[in-house]
Amino acid sequence: MSANISTAYSQLITKLKRAHLLETVFGLLGWDEQVNLPPDSADIRAEQAAVMAEVCHEAAAHGDIESLLQTLESSHAELTADQRTVVRHARRDYDRLTKLPSSFVAERAKWVSSAYHAWAQAKAANDFASYIPSLKKHLELARKEAELLGWGDRPYDYMIDKHDPGMTAEKVNALFSELKEGLIPFVRQILASPQRASTRLFQGFPVEEQRHFLREVTEKLGFDYRRGRIDVSLHPFCSGSGADIRMTTRFHEDEPLDSLFSSIHETGHGMYEQGLPLADQGTPLGQAIGMGVHESQSRLWENQVSRSQAFWNYFEPRFRERFPTQTAALTSDALYRAINAVEPTLIRVDADEVTYNLHIMLRFEVEQQLFRRELRAEDLPAAWNRLSSDILGLTPPDDRRGVLQDVHWSGGAFGYFPSYCIGNMIAAQLWYKVRADLPDLESDFARGEFGRLLTWLRTQIHHQGRRFDTMGIVKQVTGEELSPRYLLRYLRERYAPLYLN
Amino acid sequence: MSANISTAYSQLITKLKRAHLLETVFGLLGWDEQVNLPPDSADIRAEQAAVMAEVCHEAAAHGDIESLLQTLESSHAELTADQRTVVRHARRDYDRLTKLPSSFVAERAKWVSSAYHAWAQAKAANDFASYIPSLKKHLELARKEAELLGWGDRPYDYMIDKHDPGMTAEKVNALFSELKEGLIPFVRQILASPQRASTRLFQGFPVEEQRHFLREVTEKLGFDYRRGRIDVSLHPFCSGSGADIRMTTRFHEDEPLDSLFSSIHETGHGMYEQGLPLADQGTPLGQAIGMGVHESQSRLWENQVSRSQAFWNYFEPRFRERFPTQTAALTSDALYRAINAVEPTLIRVDADEVTYNLHIMLRFEVEQQLFRRELRAEDLPAAWNRLSSDILGLTPPDDRRGVLQDVHWSGGAFGYFPSYCIGNMIAAQLWYKVRADLPDLESDFARGEFGRLLTWLRTQIHHQGRRFDTMGIVKQVTGEELSPRYLLRYLRERYAPLYLN
Repeated sequence: MSANISTAYSQLITKLKRAHLLETVFGLLGWDEQVNLPPDSADIRAEQAAVMAEVCHEAAAHGDIESLLQTLESSHAELTADQRTVVRHARRDYDRLTKLPSSFVAERAKWVSSAYHAWAQAKAANDFASYIPSLKKHLELARKEAELLGWGDRPYDYMIDKHDPGMTAEKVNALFSELKEGLIPFVRQILASPQRASTRLFQGFPVEEQRHFLREVTEKLGFDYRRGRIDVSLHPFCSGSGADIRMTTRFHEDEPLDSLFSSIHETGHGMYEQGLPLADQGTPLGQAIGMGVHESQSRLWENQVSRSQAFWNYFEPRFRERFPTQTAALTSDALYRAINAVEPTLIRVDADEVTYNLHIMLRFEVEQQLFRRELRAEDLPAAWNRLSSDILGLTPPDDRRGVLQDVHWSGGAFGYFPSYCIGNMIAAQLWYKVRADLPDLESDFARGEFGRLLTWLRTQIHHQGRRFDTMGIVKQVTGEELSPRYLLRYLRERYAPLYLN
Repeated sequence: MSANISTAYSQLITKLKRAHLLETVFGLLGWDEQVNLPPDSADIRAEQAAVMAEVCHEAAAHGDIESLLQTLESSHAELTADQRTVVRHARRDYDRLTKLPSSFVAERAKWVSSAYHAWAQAKAANDFASYIPSLKKHLELARKEAELLGWGDRPYDYMIDKHDPGMTAEKVNALFSELKEGLIPFVRQILASPQRASTRLFQGFPVEEQRHFLREVTEKLGFDYRRGRIDVSLHPFCSGSGADIRMTTRFHEDEPLDSLFSSIHETGHGMYEQGLPLADQGTPLGQAIGMGVHESQSRLWENQVSRSQAFWNYFEPRFRERFPTQTAALTSDALYRAINAVEPTLIRVDADEVTYNLHIMLRFEVEQQLFRRELRAEDLPAAWNRLSSDILGLTPPDDRRGVLQDVHWSGGAFGYFPSYCIGNMIAAQLWYKVRADLPDLESDFARGEFGRLLTWLRTQIHHQGRRFDTMGIVKQVTGEELSPRYLLRYLRERYAPLYLN
C-alpha cells in the first residue's frame, strides 16, 4: 500500500472517530434528558440538541471525508479487506447524510417534532383522524428520502435497509410467511390449553432490593459496570458507546419481573456495544451491524437465557433470599410459569415472547401496504383491526389500543418494526448453534456462569463490527441462511412443556 | 439605529448564544464526569472533552464575530447603552480567546493536565521539589499569556482581572491591608477567649434524612428545583447555566453541617445564575460579573443568612424533628455555637468564615511576590510557612498541609484566590445595605421566608448581568466604594457575642 493511501486511510479514521465522539456527546445529552433533566429545563435542552445536531452533521458530512473516500475508492485494489469494509460503510453513511439537501433535513426535523405531538395528542384523545395529516406527511417524506438516495422505486426496501443493511421487504416477507405458518397454529394450541399462568403473584417488592437484585443478575451475565451504569427513566433504553454504556430501567413494587427482564434486555444491547472492538470505536469495524442483530443480542439474553429453567435454578434461591416474605407463598412452578406466561394482548410492548412476533407481522403487513399505496392512511384503523383479529385473534376496542399505540411512525421510523422479529429469529438460530458449539452450556447457567456464552458471542459476532450484514453474519456464524425454523423450534421446546403437556 | 447595525447586533447575539450553548453542553460533560462517569470510562470522556473544547473554541473564536464586532464598534454612537455593554464584553472575551496562538493554547492545555498530576503526586508524597518545574512552567505561561494580551507589564493584574473584571493587585492590596489590620487583632481576641465551640457533636445522621433536610432548606431559600438539581460528587460544586443548574454536595453521617452549609453555598451560586435574565443567556447581559461577585452570593446565603440566629429559630425545630435521637442531647446554644465555631486550621477549605480570610491574604501575598519576581518557586515553602505563622498563627508541619494544599496553581489559576475574600467583603457590604433597605429582614428568616431578600438580590444584582464590573456593582448597589469595614463589622457583631462576652 502506498504511503499516500495509508495516510488517506488514517485521516479518514480520524475524521470518522471525531464525528463519532461528537455523536456520543449528543447521545449523552439525550440520556441526561431522560434521566436527569429538571422539568423546566426542556427548552434549553432542545436548543442544546439543535446546536449539537448541527455540529454532528458538520463533522460527519465534512467535505474532507468525500475527498478521502474518493482517494481510497480509486485505489480499491490496494486496500486490505478490513479497509474495504470501512470505506464501503463510510461511503454508504456519508452519502445517506449528504445526499439529502439541508432544506429537506430541516423540513423533516420540524415534522418529527410536530408529528410526535400530533401522535401523542391523537392517542390521548383516541382521535386517529387528527393524526392522518402527520402520518401522510411522514410517508411522503420517507418516499422523498428514498428517491433522493436512489431508492425511488423501492422506498420500503430503503426503509428496511436503513435499519438492517442488506435486508429487503421480499426477504422479510419470505421469513415472516414461514414463521406465521408455524406460529399461528402453535399460539392457538396454547390458547386452547387449560393451563394458564398467573402473572399477578407479585406484590410489595421494595425498589431498593429490586435494584440490588437486578444489579447482581446483570453483573453475573457479564455487563461491565466499570464501563457503564444503569439508571431510572420513564421507558427503559440503552444508550452510549462501548466505552461508556448508559442503560435505564423503571421500577414498580408489584412488577419486579418487568424491571428485571427489561434490564436484562438492555444488558444484552449493552454487552453487544461493550464487545465491539474498543480501538475501532467510531469506525465501521467498531459499530453494530444493525437493529436486527442488536435485537438478537438483547432477546437472546432476555429470553433464551434468562427465562430458562437453568437460569432460575441458580437465581431463584437468590430471589427468595432477597424477597423472603414476598415469595413465601410462591411455588417454584408458579414462578417459572409467570416468567414464561403466554397471554395475547393488544399492546405490543406488553406482549410475551411468543405472541410478540404476531404484533410485528401485523405492522409489517400494514407498512408494506402503505408503501405499495394499497392502503390509504384514512383506511388504516380498519385494516389494522382486521389484521389484528386475523393474526392476534383480538380486535382493538379503540385506536388507542390499536393503530395509535406505537410511537415509531410519529418519528418517521418506518421499516423499523421488522427488526424486532428478525432479532428473535436470529437469537433462536444462534441459540441452537452456540449449544452445539458449547456442549452442556445450560449447566453453566445453573451455576451462575455465563462467561462461555458471552465469549462465544464476543468472538462470533461482537468482534466482527460491520464486516458482515444482517443475513451475512447469520450465515457466517451458523453456516446456514437465516430461517424462522429455529425460533419455531425454540418456542415449541420452551412452551409446549408448559402449555401442551 | 440603522437596519444594518440592528442586523449586525442580532447576528452577534446569535453567534454568542450558539457559542454559549456549546459551552453548556461541554459543562454538562464536566458535571457528568464528576457525578456519573463509570470508573473505566475516563479515557473516552477525555477524548469527548478534547473535541468539545475544539468545537467550543471554533464557535467562540469564529471570524464572523470579529467582523460583526468591527461593524458595531465603528457605529458606537448608534448603539444603546445595553448594546455597548454587550459589544464591550464580547470584544474583551473575543480578544482574550483569539489573541492566543493555538500553539500556545495547546501547550498550556498539555501543562494543565501534566501539572495537575505532578501536583497530586507531590501532595501525596509531601514532595514540593518535584512540583517546582510544573509551577515554574505555569508561572512562565501566565506571564506569556499576559504579554500576548497586552498586559506584559502587569501580569498579575491580568490574572486578577480575568476573574474579577476591573480589579487590580493595588486595589486588592489596599482592601486586604485594611481588613488585616482589623481582623488579626480580632482573631487574637477570639483565640484568647475561654469560650470554645465543639463541632464534634454530631453522629449517625442518616444520609437520606440529611438529603431531605438540605432539600427543604435550599428550596425555602429560593433555589428553583424546576430548573436545577443537586447530586453527589467528591467535591461540591455548582455548574450549568440558569436554565439548568447542576449543584453537588457530599455526605458524611457524622458531619451533617458540612453537607448542609456546602449545599447552601452552592445554592447561593445557583440562585445567582438562576437570577440572570433567561432571555439574555449566553450574552454579557445574562452572564455573571465575575468570581468575586459570584462568591458574594454564595457567602451571603451561607454565612450572613444561614448561620444567623433568625435562620435557626426557624430551622432548628425542623432539624430536631428529622434527627430526634441524634439531637436529643444537643442544646440550642451548643448547636448555634457549632454552626459558628471559630478555630484556626491549616487547611483553607476547612476554615471558618472568620479565619478563612487570613488564608486568602497569605496566598495573595505569595502570588504577588511570585509575579513581582521577589520570590522564587524554590523558596515558596519557607515563605509560605513564615506567612502562615505571621498571619494565621500556625506553622504547617509539612508542605502537604501548607503550600501544596490547593489545586488552583496546578491548573494555572493565579489571581483566583483573592476573589474568595473579595466575595466575603461584598457579601457583608450588601448585607448592611439590604437590611437598611428592607427593615426587619431577619424576622422574615425566623418565619422561614427568604423571598424579600432574594428579590432584592435579583433586582439589584442578578438582573444586571455584566452591566457593571466588580467594584462598579458594589458602588451602584450600596452607594459606596467596596470597603472591608462591613465585613469587619459583621464578623464582630456575629462573633463577639459568642466569644467575647
